[in-house]
Amino acid sequence: MEFTAWFGKLKLDADGEIQDCNLFDNDPEKLAELVVQLQESSKEKPQSVPLQRTDLRDAALGCGFVELDEDYDILLRDVCIRAAKSQISQTDTDDSRIIQAVEALDDIDKNVNELSERLFEWYGRYFPELEMTGEELANFVSTYGSRSNVPDDHELSEKASQSMGAELMFADEELLRSFARNICSLYDTRRYIENYINTSMGSVAPNLCEIAGASIGARLMSMAGSLEKLAAFPSSTVQVIGANRALFKHLRSRAPSPKHGIIFNNPVIKNAPWWQRGKLARALAAKISLAARTDFYSGELDSTIKEALDKKLESIRQANPNPPERKPEAKPQGKGGKRRSRGRKKNKKSGGNK
Amino acid sequence: MEFTAWFGKLKLDADGEIQDCNLFDNDPEKLAELVVQLQESSKEKPQSVPLQRTDLRDAALGCGFVELDEDYDILLRDVCIRAAKSQISQTDTDDSRIIQAVEALDDIDKNVNELSERLFEWYGRYFPELEMTGEELANFVSTYGSRSNVPDDHELSEKASQSMGAELMFADEELLRSFARNICSLYDTRRYIENYINTSMGSVAPNLCEIAGASIGARLMSMAGSLEKLAAFPSSTVQVIGANRALFKHLRSRAPSPKHGIIFNNPVIKNAPWWQRGKLARALAAKISLAARTDFYSGELDSTIKEALDKKLESIRQANPNPPERKPEAKPQGKGGKRRSRGRKKNKKSGGNK
Repeated sequence: MEFTAWFGKLKLDADGEIQDCNLFDNDPEKLAELVVQLQESSKEKPQSVPLQRTDLRDAALGCGFVELDEDYDILLRDVCIRAAKSQISQTDTDDSRIIQAVEALDDIDKNVNELSERLFEWYGRYFPELEMTGEELANFVSTYGSRSNVPDDHELSEKASQSMGAELMFADEELLRSFARNICSLYDTRRYIENYINTSMGSVAPNLCEIAGASIGARLMSMAGSLEKLAAFPSSTVQVIGANRALFKHLRSRAPSPKHGIIFNNPVIKNAPWWQRGKLARALAAKISLAARTDFYSGELDSTIKEALDKKLESIRQANPNPPERKPEAKPQGKGGKRRSRGRKKNKKSGGNK
Repeated sequence: MEFTAWFGKLKLDADGEIQDCNLFDNDPEKLAELVVQLQESSKEKPQSVPLQRTDLRDAALGCGFVELDEDYDILLRDVCIRAAKSQISQTDTDDSRIIQAVEALDDIDKNVNELSERLFEWYGRYFPELEMTGEELANFVSTYGSRSNVPDDHELSEKASQSMGAELMFADEELLRSFARNICSLYDTRRYIENYINTSMGSVAPNLCEIAGASIGARLMSMAGSLEKLAAFPSSTVQVIGANRALFKHLRSRAPSPKHGIIFNNPVIKNAPWWQRGKLARALAAKISLAARTDFYSGELDSTIKEALDKKLESIRQANPNPPERKPEAKPQGKGGKRRSRGRKKNKKSGGNK
């Protein structure tokens, strides 16, 4: 039988004795490539019996691939390190890039909010009548600085001239402007990353993007870990991704099960009346799961998923036009009840009674 | 007797009857200024007896300052609002500006760290061999972007060409560069604010700045609330400002009292051997407290404080040249022991056993 080792092709007889060998070049770079290929192809095949009786080191020495025992070790080590490095460099897949971008987006969101609050408090000393927050405020401060710089034809010029705020000194003005400029550019980067996610999602996961929306799709992938993992999830898991608190609450105690995780942010569910949400979320999650699988295994856009989803949603809406009678809510039980209300407040997106 | 009301000067007899009145102009702006002055001057004086029997509304109508009861209300309201606004605009004191800057500095520190960590993780996929963090990394990424742009004469060019990281696509490169630029400019603003604090502290609180250092002095003011409040604190409080956790732990249980709060960051204490730290902190806190009072009440730089401090520190150092024998540490008591070790980790600056 023939067998390909990392240093050459060997012909073995039934006892594992070498009959003939065809050595490769002694070039670590090429050998490393071969090792990677070998690893991938040998995943499926079981080891044959003669091979188990053969010692590769003896074979390499016997065929004259290396002369000394040490040379064999040195070369093998070098080849293996090269192979591992080349495998590492191939881990950068499209979905992992999107996941990085989503995580960076979340970080920016969190940090830019904190900095905006600081700017609001700081600038509020100099122009308390200004009813702006976030990016609008940052733009205003970086453009005008002191309120005495607001031009006469600006809609806020009257408020600015009559403000009860303190006078802004030059040094402080420069400080505030530089601070506000930072916030503005963080908002710019945020938009930039958002565009990137929207564009990439269209090519990486076109179906997921169409069914769930780019940002929710990307977030689902980020929470699952990769597109492959998301495709492997059952749709009931997809439905509650992001509602971890409510889910474990439900599993631990008698709390109601969460109806939707981050897919709640999809307009289909967000804009629906409360009594339809659970059913719509189940239908949507089923199609999201299907879309993720289609994306992972074929990568082609399949418009039938969207059509089927629309039909399903419409039939749910028509079957449940009126709110059911609300059951009288169970009495909260001491500690449990308290926790539940806290959990809900923090997890607005995630839960509620069915 | 004479009495100044908000609308004019009145002459009253012993029964509170008006003998004569000298009215002010009916101009809300000027009247508001007068009200502010009156409030300040009347803080010290108690109300005299005749005045308690006088109704100012009747007096104003009687003297002909206003014709109708309603006019009195409208004018008084207008004047009071103007007075309040002008008082608000005067609350922007030098120390409050420094406090705002210190708080902004803390916010930037916190947020720029989080963003740097994200950049480290994100860029690490493309150049894992790069051993940079924080500003250095942000500068590198914003300058070069992809590692293939590192010039040949750069010290990292060899690492860059042999890196096992993935190839960086153009879209991702732009994203990363924009993200890194944000981090760089946040670091710039941070330096800018730091300079501002150092400069301002020199003029607002020269003694505090000399004894404690600009940044610690500013932080002490920020934690106390204002220079006035800091000046009112006893030096034992100044010594443990910032060690709240350790202090309340000490008051609640049998934990050792904290030796130093944020003044620990002063090199005098930071570089001292552990057995001198408590004594040095007490001496330093005493002089910081003195410096804050000098700054608040005179504002002049008094070099004798620094001289006295140096003498005191030297004598402490000479009196305690060798470490005392360490007492065997008390056994941690169940829950308390666990909490204590956690408390210490988070509060590195603040405590330790004496």
